[in-house]
Amino acid sequence: MIMQTLVVVAHPERVQSGTQEFLQASAAPFKTVQWHELEAPFEKEAEQRQLLTADRLILQFPLYWYSAPAMLYQWLDDVWTEKFAVRAGNLNGKQLGIVVTTGVADQAYHAGEREGFTLDEILRPFQALAHKTGMTYLPLFPITQFGYQTDAQKQRLLVAYQRYLTEPYPRHFADTEKWFAEQLAQLAADHPDYQLLLDQFTKNADELEQLNDTLQMMRQNEEND
Amino acid sequence: MIMQTLVVVAHPERVQSGTQEFLQASAAPFKTVQWHELEAPFEKEAEQRQLLTADRLILQFPLYWYSAPAMLYQWLDDVWTEKFAVRAGNLNGKQLGIVVTTGVADQAYHAGEREGFTLDEILRPFQALAHKTGMTYLPLFPITQFGYQTDAQKQRLLVAYQRYLTEPYPRHFADTEKWFAEQLAQLAADHPDYQLLLDQFTKNADELEQLNDTLQMMRQNEEND
Repeated sequence: MIMQTLVVVAHPERVQSGTQEFLQASAAPFKTVQWHELEAPFEKEAEQRQLLTADRLILQFPLYWYSAPAMLYQWLDDVWTEKFAVRAGNLNGKQLGIVVTTGVADQAYHAGEREGFTLDEILRPFQALAHKTGMTYLPLFPITQFGYQTDAQKQRLLVAYQRYLTEPYPRHFADTEKWFAEQLAQLAADHPDYQLLLDQFTKNADELEQLNDTLQMMRQNEEND
Repeated sequence: MIMQTLVVVAHPERVQSGTQEFLQASAAPFKTVQWHELEAPFEKEAEQRQLLTADRLILQFPLYWYSAPAMLYQWLDDVWTEKFAVRAGNLNGKQLGIVVTTGVADQAYHAGEREGFTLDEILRPFQALAHKTGMTYLPLFPITQFGYQTDAQKQRLLVAYQRYLTEPYPRHFADTEKWFAEQLAQLAADHPDYQLLLDQFTKNADELEQLNDTLQMMRQNEEND
C-alpha cells in the first residue's frame, strides 16, 4: 500500500507567502500528497475524515512567538476531540511531521544564542501531542530564512522537502536510493532526455550495492576478530 | 514602589470554569492585582497600555493539547508586535508567570509516564518568549485536578496562588514572613478577632529571627573550623 501524506498548512497570510507557494509547487507532482490549507470555521467531521485518510500528517506553519499561529490551535481544539484523537485511537500508528518556517537563522536556536532554545525544545508540545495520540514523531523539518536562499539552496530544499513528505521513515539508505530512482523514472517517462541519467543512476546504484556488501563483510570479519 | 500584577486569563469557557472562579475570588482582595479576561477581537493599543502598567504578568489558561487555547496565541499575534515587545524593550525587566490548569494528575507529566514530558518542557515556548522579551521567567504555577481537591487543599492553593501573584521574586524566607504578616495585619484591621493571631505571629517571627541569627553564627563557626 502506498503511503498517503496530508499537509495541513496554517498560515494567516498564506497568499503573500512565497515560502508556502514554493512548498506547494514542490509537493504538487505527488499524487499521494494532499494539500490542505486551514481556514476557519472548521467542519469537524469533514476534517476528521480527511485525517483518517493520511498515513503521514504534516503540520506546516510559520513560527509565531515560539508557537504555531492561533488558527492551528483552533483547528486542534475543534477537530482533535479527545474521543477522536485519543480514545478511539484513530491516529495511532500514523506519523506526525512538522514543517516550520522562520525568518531567524538556524544557529540562533541554541542555548546561549539569540533564541535561547532549540527548535526541538520549542516544538515539544507537538512531540507530546504525537506521544499522546500514538503517532510516530518525525524529525523536524525547519526552513529558515527562505528569502535569503540561493537558487542552488532552494533546489536542495525542494528535494529534501519532497523526501520529507514521501520517503519511508525511518530512513534507510536503500529507501533513499529507491526514492531517487522512482523520481528519475517518473521524469524519464515524461521527458525521454532523462533516460540516460536514469541508466547511469541504476548502474551506479548496482555498484554501490556491491560496495556495500563488501563493506558489510569487512565489518563482520572485524567483529569476529 | 508596590509591585503591580496583571492576570491575563485565556479560557474559552470561562463562565463554566469553577477553577477560574476560585482563582478570581482568591485574587480579589489585592488592590495591586488587575484581572483581565481575554475576549477577541483585541484592541491592540489598549492591550499594550495595560501591559505597560504591570511589573508581573501572569498568563493563566487551561492546557489544551499541550498548549494554551487558541485565543491566547491570537492575543500574542495581535498585541505583542515585534516592535512593541522586542525592539522598544517595553517588557524588559518585567516578570512572566504561567498559571496552567489541567485535569491530569501531576505525576503523569514525566518521561515514561502517561504524558511523557514535564510541564516545564511542555511550556518551553513561554520561557522562550520571556527570554526574547527580556522578562524574568517565574517557576510555573500548575493547578492539577482542581475538581478533586479537598477543602484543605483548596485553602493551601488559595494562599499559594495569592503569593504567586504578589510575593517578591526570587523568594526569600524573610519576604514570605513579611507577606504573611501583611496579610494578617490586613485581616486584623477588618476583623479584630485576628489581632491575637497577629500578635502571636509577630512574637513567633521575632523568636524565629533570633533562632536564625544563632544558626548563622553556628554555620560561620563551622566554616571557620
